Amino acid sequence: MNLYDLRDSIDNNDVGKEMYGLIEELYPICRSITGNGARQSLDILKKHIPLTIQEIPTGTQVFDWTVPKEWNIKDACIKNSKGDKVIDFQDSNLHVVNYSVPIRKEMTLAELKDHLHTIPEYPDWIPYRTSYYKETWGFCLSHNQFLKLEDDDYEVLIDSSLKDGHLAYGEYYLSGRNGDEILISCHICHPSLSNDNLSGIAVSTFLAKYLSSLSLKFSYRFLFIPGTIGSITWLSLNESNVSKIKHGLVLACVGDSGRYTYKKSRLGNAEIDRIVMNILKHSGEENKAIDFSPYGYDERQYCSPGFNLPVGCFMRTPYGEYPEYHTSADNLDFVQPGYLAASFSILLSILSVIESNDRYLSLNSKCEPQLGRRGLYDHLGGKAGSKARQLAMLWVLNLSDGNHTLLDISDRSGLDFSLIKNAADSLTDSGLITVMDKR
Amino acid sequence: MNLYDLRDSIDNNDVGKEMYGLIEELYPICRSITGNGARQSLDILKKHIPLTIQEIPTGTQVFDWTVPKEWNIKDACIKNSKGDKVIDFQDSNLHVVNYSVPIRKEMTLAELKDHLHTIPEYPDWIPYRTSYYKETWGFCLSHNQFLKLEDDDYEVLIDSSLKDGHLAYGEYYLSGRNGDEILISCHICHPSLSNDNLSGIAVSTFLAKYLSSLSLKFSYRFLFIPGTIGSITWLSLNESNVSKIKHGLVLACVGDSGRYTYKKSRLGNAEIDRIVMNILKHSGEENKAIDFSPYGYDERQYCSPGFNLPVGCFMRTPYGEYPEYHTSADNLDFVQPGYLAASFSILLSILSVIESNDRYLSLNSKCEPQLGRRGLYDHLGGKAGSKARQLAMLWVLNLSDGNHTLLDISDRSGLDFSLIKNAADSLTDSGLITVMDKR
Amino acid sequence: MNLYDLRDSIDNNDVGKEMYGLIEELYPICRSITGNGARQSLDILKKHIPLTIQEIPTGTQVFDWTVPKEWNIKDACIKNSKGDKVIDFQDSNLHVVNYSVPIRKEMTLAELKDHLHTIPEYPDWIPYRTSYYKETWGFCLSHNQFLKLEDDDYEVLIDSSLKDGHLAYGEYYLSGRNGDEILISCHICHPSLSNDNLSGIAVSTFLAKYLSSLSLKFSYRFLFIPGTIGSITWLSLNESNVSKIKHGLVLACVGDSGRYTYKKSRLGNAEIDRIVMNILKHSGEENKAIDFSPYGYDERQYCSPGFNLPVGCFMRTPYGEYPEYHTSADNLDFVQPGYLAASFSILLSILSVIESNDRYLSLNSKCEPQLGRRGLYDHLGGKAGSKARQLAMLWVLNLSDGNHTLLDISDRSGLDFSLIKNAADSLTDSGLITVMDKR
Repeated sequence: MNLYDLRDSIDNNDVGKEMYGLIEELYPICRSITGNGARQSLDILKKHIPLTIQEIPTGTQVFDWTVPKEWNIKDACIKNSKGDKVIDFQDSNLHVVNYSVPIRKEMTLAELKDHLHTIPEYPDWIPYRTSYYKETWGFCLSHNQFLKLEDDDYEVLIDSSLKDGHLAYGEYYLSGRNGDEILISCHICHPSLSNDNLSGIAVSTFLAKYLSSLSLKFSYRFLFIPGTIGSITWLSLNESNVSKIKHGLVLACVGDSGRYTYKKSRLGNAEIDRIVMNILKHSGEENKAIDFSPYGYDERQYCSPGFNLPVGCFMRTPYGEYPEYHTSADNLDFVQPGYLAASFSILLSILSVIESNDRYLSLNSKCEPQLGRRGLYDHLGGKAGSKARQLAMLWVLNLSDGNHTLLDISDRSGLDFSLIKNAADSLTDSGLITVMDKR
Repeated sequence: MNLYDLRDSIDNNDVGKEMYGLIEELYPICRSITGNGARQSLDILKKHIPLTIQEIPTGTQVFDWTVPKEWNIKDACIKNSKGDKVIDFQDSNLHVVNYSVPIRKEMTLAELKDHLHTIPEYPDWIPYRTSYYKETWGFCLSHNQFLKLEDDDYEVLIDSSLKDGHLAYGEYYLSGRNGDEILISCHICHPSLSNDNLSGIAVSTFLAKYLSSLSLKFSYRFLFIPGTIGSITWLSLNESNVSKIKHGLVLACVGDSGRYTYKKSRLGNAEIDRIVMNILKHSGEENKAIDFSPYGYDERQYCSPGFNLPVGCFMRTPYGEYPEYHTSADNLDFVQPGYLAASFSILLSILSVIESNDRYLSLNSKCEPQLGRRGLYDHLGGKAGSKARQLAMLWVLNLSDGNHTLLDISDRSGLDFSLIKNAADSLTDSGLITVMDKR
Repeated sequence: MNLYDLRDSIDNNDVGKEMYGLIEELYPICRSITGNGARQSLDILKKHIPLTIQEIPTGTQVFDWTVPKEWNIKDACIKNSKGDKVIDFQDSNLHVVNYSVPIRKEMTLAELKDHLHTIPEYPDWIPYRTSYYKETWGFCLSHNQFLKLEDDDYEVLIDSSLKDGHLAYGEYYLSGRNGDEILISCHICHPSLSNDNLSGIAVSTFLAKYLSSLSLKFSYRFLFIPGTIGSITWLSLNESNVSKIKHGLVLACVGDSGRYTYKKSRLGNAEIDRIVMNILKHSGEENKAIDFSPYGYDERQYCSPGFNLPVGCFMRTPYGEYPEYHTSADNLDFVQPGYLAASFSILLSILSVIESNDRYLSLNSKCEPQLGRRGLYDHLGGKAGSKARQLAMLWVLNLSDGNHTLLDISDRSGLDFSLIKNAADSLTDSGLITVMDKR
């Protein structure tokens, strides 16, 4: 079974529910760039795919960075003078600034306020904040909660630990017919956030799961890593093998209702860039391609000038462009099975193109071959117009000069890639064209 | 006399009438890709230009194709049980599917219907259908005629023959000062259809006729060939000389009232493509350039990847984009002398550019030469603006660095090519520039 | 002090008034391409900058041209039969066609009319006309004055001289750290015209004056020359040094209220072209870039094919595009200090980019360096959006691969050049990037 067969045989409804179910399971866990939350999440993924989990010790030098201390948290709260918990980590793990150092202290409201974060514009939402590289502590709360805080003496408790340990990430390598690699990367470091984080994890996991049963040309490497420090660590440890990566995608924010957004690689016109734009154009769905910028997800590292890999970022609504981004409103309602499944299906189409974007050579390059006597052409001529399938064959024949890939032909003709691919298959079967450099 | 002089001396009104007269003469003949209809048509053209007629035997292998049997037809009709001719080939040669095998048979209406073709959307029009490469027979009729057919026994007669013979085409070679060739190609295989077929034949014939009296730089090759099999045959027989073709145009559908349409060569930016677009842009007429696609007229063969010739297709309304296309409504009313003459005039302008698109070298490349003392510039300075002719001279001087053709200068300056050409002539006469690589 | 410091320390209001004051002083003088008017004007400029004045003898051969005779004028008038001066050179030096030969003669109105020039569309304005290269004489007057001329005998007097002498121009060379030159050129040959001529002189003079106190990378050459013959003369005399000119601007029409217009060099994509367009785009002011054409100011000569220098023309409303152009209405009201100052400020920004458009090399090309521990990044992560300064640093790091100048980075990121330059300075100070090929 190849990718096209898979795409056609899958029930999107089922896949959407499976991915949403995984998100529900992962949602309550308090993840961070290190610690047991990430480990626990990777263990859940192992129920679906045979993930290898790497543990990198604190203090490991990775390019300009150092693997930080491992952070873990058991509980946290703010109690008023009556002993009531006015803020409770058990209600939402967003309440604690991620990577907060342990504290147990009494303080006035004025002292406390220096450590509180809210979003006045959305008074019901809790913001998500981190402080990985400066040791501090803090609480996040809704602005309405904040306004209710009375002038009082408060007891602040954060039962966390920040100690030498490890950074954990998951890796799954699926071997294809050749050693050239496709990289699929997602971040696993956010706590209870659905679209930014969990949607990418779910879609990556099920892509890996479904692809594992196929006969594939390329090898696929799936990375489940903490943002920034994770990709830097992986690149540092795998520097010598990076040149095998021929195409790559960072997946994030793929479960919301927004239009598709593709952020191009730094190269700007890599094959992956052209493939994603081709598929989105023919998808019938609203979409937008944006140029690379060095702000975003782990494409920042893959596209740093010393690597400059052909890795783009596939999203629906991008980071920072929806108000729910990095707040408690990016919850289980914000992503839906149908949106996850639609993203999944588009990604299968993208991978199908990667797998089959070959160049062909016409064996009748001087004038058209006679399609009619091979049963490939309507016998009754004179009718205005022509069928798309016949037109696709004429395009493939005309551009199979050794210089054009099927993607080139689809782009130039404006015809759907799968129509072009089918035409190429028919013409190959008829002995009219032959594939070049079959891998 | 050169092409510019010709264009200025011609009375468009007269040429339009001449071309229309030729169309009227050719219209009644039942042409096909082989047979006496084509021969009879070529004989009529010989009254205007000394055409060479080539006869290629049935069975000749031409690339992937074989020259088919020769088809001829004397008569055809459908009679009802009373002996009335309900469909009569003598009324319109479109009534018979072109290349129908002979038949004489009685049948019921139900049996007959499998062999009838109509256009329900245009119930008064007879469609044009062919079946060159599958032996069958059929009748085309208006949908209104079809609806009047009663349940009856019908006698079907097609007095045709399909036998070994020849494929005939016409060729006219006009020798210029150098051996580089301009190809003008039109198809001659359609029966009573005016715009698609006869308009191209008429304009090609009169281009050839008028050009034959001129002193020309390039050699011109005019082909009057059956569509597809004709160009394939010609290319197969002339493969070794094809590299002489430097520019080419397929002419078709040049007599209707629609805007001009130029379909670019497969190369997309060949000199002929740029020339036609330049002329159309400055023509003041509505026009549209479209990219090459491998569906259309004989540019499909000239632009097959093994040849990839710089041949575009010059049309008014393109094939398949007017409802009358390939129907009895593409008749003598659908084309008009004025439209033919306008197309003819545009083509003369295009050929004028081809003939004179030289590069020049300024003999004063450092700073402008002093035009005033040579009588080429207004003496009284200070007036706002400048005359187009002076501006054209400044452009030619500035870009005559050996890298720019006059077309480049026209394109970059936005000035009409003939204005640029005049300026180059004046500057040459004054000894300020000199033509390079004069051919 | 560098250019950025200068731009920030200057009071635009003061500079605007200084430049306007210079225009007021120069306005009454009757300048031409030769003669004492130009000399007197250059002497006034010497009060601001240590100009070198060159005197080139009549008859000197300069490429295709010859330095003309020197023209001087003392007085001119037309008197009616009663002895009243109906046209008086003392009222406006535009009244005499520039370069008119001496004449003292009586004539009828009919004879006189052949030598009179008016603008009927603007009946109150006197046109500006010249006749440098054909010996003739004439008067310019408002159309209303013209209509009042009665049928009478007139005495015509032009007390001018046209004799062997010199062509004078001014040159100021400001030596920088390297010998590569920036050319700033303006024309000085127009009589009482403010925007076309004096505005360019004033802005060039004060650019030179302010730059003279700075530490500069490039050397700057300011030319104050008569139009056409002046630049041809200078190029002819300095041909061997022209290759030192790396960027150049012709300044003209920079004092009116119109939007900025930048006419690109003949190269079209020279660094100066990209710099000016970048600065104008970020200026927040209305602006338009137009392609090079060989009609205009002295860029015609600098961009002649034998030189093809990277010299553009910086204007507000271009020559010929405002009705006041080359008329008495281009007067002291038509230019204003504020517009002069705004042009001046834009030019300082342009020169700032030229001075600092270096390429840098990131010393951490594999993955981003950790900005946080160097105090260059916000510690508290998770907040949506990012500050422009941080984004600028990420862009500089990402594109400091040895292939991109700061202008490239500004263009690609869409961020203001000065923001990019500041980021590059901070990153250099932190040892994260290093400048390449420091000049």
